[in-house]
Amino acid sequence: MPENTTPEHPVEYSIGLDLGGTNLRAAAVDRTGRMLNKVSGKTQYSEGREAIVSDMVEAIESMRSQFGKENLSGIGIGVPGFISLKEGIIKNCANIPSLENFPIREEIGSRLGHKIILENDANAAALGEKWIGAGRDVDDLIMLTLGTGIGGGIISNGKVLRGVNGMAGELGHITVVPNGYPCGCGNRGCVEKHASATAIIAMAKLLNLGDNLTSKQVYDLALAGNQKAQMIFQSVGECIGIVLAMLINAFNFPLYLIAGGVTAGWDLFAPALLDETRRRSFTFRTTPTRVECALLGNEAGLYGAAYLPWSEKLIPG
Amino acid sequence: MPENTTPEHPVEYSIGLDLGGTNLRAAAVDRTGRMLNKVSGKTQYSEGREAIVSDMVEAIESMRSQFGKENLSGIGIGVPGFISLKEGIIKNCANIPSLENFPIREEIGSRLGHKIILENDANAAALGEKWIGAGRDVDDLIMLTLGTGIGGGIISNGKVLRGVNGMAGELGHITVVPNGYPCGCGNRGCVEKHASATAIIAMAKLLNLGDNLTSKQVYDLALAGNQKAQMIFQSVGECIGIVLAMLINAFNFPLYLIAGGVTAGWDLFAPALLDETRRRSFTFRTTPTRVECALLGNEAGLYGAAYLPWSEKLIPG
Repeated sequence: MPENTTPEHPVEYSIGLDLGGTNLRAAAVDRTGRMLNKVSGKTQYSEGREAIVSDMVEAIESMRSQFGKENLSGIGIGVPGFISLKEGIIKNCANIPSLENFPIREEIGSRLGHKIILENDANAAALGEKWIGAGRDVDDLIMLTLGTGIGGGIISNGKVLRGVNGMAGELGHITVVPNGYPCGCGNRGCVEKHASATAIIAMAKLLNLGDNLTSKQVYDLALAGNQKAQMIFQSVGECIGIVLAMLINAFNFPLYLIAGGVTAGWDLFAPALLDETRRRSFTFRTTPTRVECALLGNEAGLYGAAYLPWSEKLIPG
Repeated sequence: MPENTTPEHPVEYSIGLDLGGTNLRAAAVDRTGRMLNKVSGKTQYSEGREAIVSDMVEAIESMRSQFGKENLSGIGIGVPGFISLKEGIIKNCANIPSLENFPIREEIGSRLGHKIILENDANAAALGEKWIGAGRDVDDLIMLTLGTGIGGGIISNGKVLRGVNGMAGELGHITVVPNGYPCGCGNRGCVEKHASATAIIAMAKLLNLGDNLTSKQVYDLALAGNQKAQMIFQSVGECIGIVLAMLINAFNFPLYLIAGGVTAGWDLFAPALLDETRRRSFTFRTTPTRVECALLGNEAGLYGAAYLPWSEKLIPG
């Protein structure tokens, strides 16, 4: 155990929990961003809501019992989906439907006997990058996480931009192809349907590259010179570029981060992405706006969730 | 002269100047939003930069000499174009090219011997609506001004969202048709090229409705039952709806205002606009988000410019 976590030298810490698409993780993190310990859930989400909620409570409790209640600054939880912060519920959660319209914040808070801060997972990831990742030198940034879907997070003045209902930053559902592919959100041509890992796989299938390819395999094909696979990454870059140009025109923030599994193909899609952004944003062409890969990988959401209590200044620190 | 502007009852006031596409206006406004007096410039912009700058200084000076230096809280100026706030210059000004890359803030400030606050005209108009117009009951709103071009202004926490260079809110150059009409900004398919008064006139010409129609005449044709003219307003509504959905997804603000001359056709384009926004934004469909017409008309920019000194809290008030 590190010297400063002994009872003689108690360390202020918070607990973050990241409810991912396939697993949950919780961590205790100190005020400087040092991870004190981490634990993973063991539940299959298919086991249903009660199993997931119990798993979340257990993971948090295991951190709290290890580091104590006295020095706990707060508990932050990042969850996927559209979140209504006022009610503390997930309104739309394609990945874990059993959690939809369930008062998750109140339920977990009451089981733990501790106030919970709920946040969208992509917002939490953006906050993590702002705290100790690629955005630690700025107060304003926007992050796009390109994975199975596309999540967005906006950090303004060092805090998550939540909007009036806590639903700001839903950047995966911005239209890039007005009559493009239909999306579960009700729209057509959402960037999520044209530039996520899922979209890469769908495009590979449409181009007869293979039925059961992973996005990594499409990437390998492109690297090996397959022109169809290269076109896919070019299309991904163009679609993300349209969204970035729009965000730059609207926000004029100094930094835009690309995160998620698809960034493994950054070299393949970045040229088209930057070309498209340049073409579509006067502000991008005439100011020192940065577009970069995020740094924290899968840990961003965990750090960001842990940082929520300090970010919100519910507890000084 | 009103009783409270006499020397016995001095009233705190500020001066706003709005540099419009064809004329400039300045006004003295008190802290409650009451306009004390207003003056218009008399210069043709074709007379060049020095004539415009002299006219601006003269208009402001006429207000200041009338109401006195003692009670002047500040001077705000709204100008068209992309503005670099750091340098106090207009970087790109299609309407008044002679002002491009000219240190207008410093020049006017030094001639008047008074600090000037420079702002984009559409941002100033949004601030005016927030202060005493359609947005006076909210702290966060976005306004689209549909005129010759399309301007945007974002008010966040009661202040203009400026971004890192002062270029935030350039919403007229957001892409709505990826391979649409080319725009002077370098992009293709900017909403300004598909939903401004200029676009309405261009569409009317393409549909052989007439070569020299005004957007008002296209509106009258639509009202009279001309189906081509009605299609034009439907297309305008759809394009604005795409932008609104994107903004709602990104910001989740409570209020979005439509302003400018094109709002005269609100009844004709609002149904398509609202349908498109509903279709493309889950947040819009599931939260009490308001989309409304602005209230202050041409005066919004003038009031907003006058409010800048108080908004920025350079001077208490």
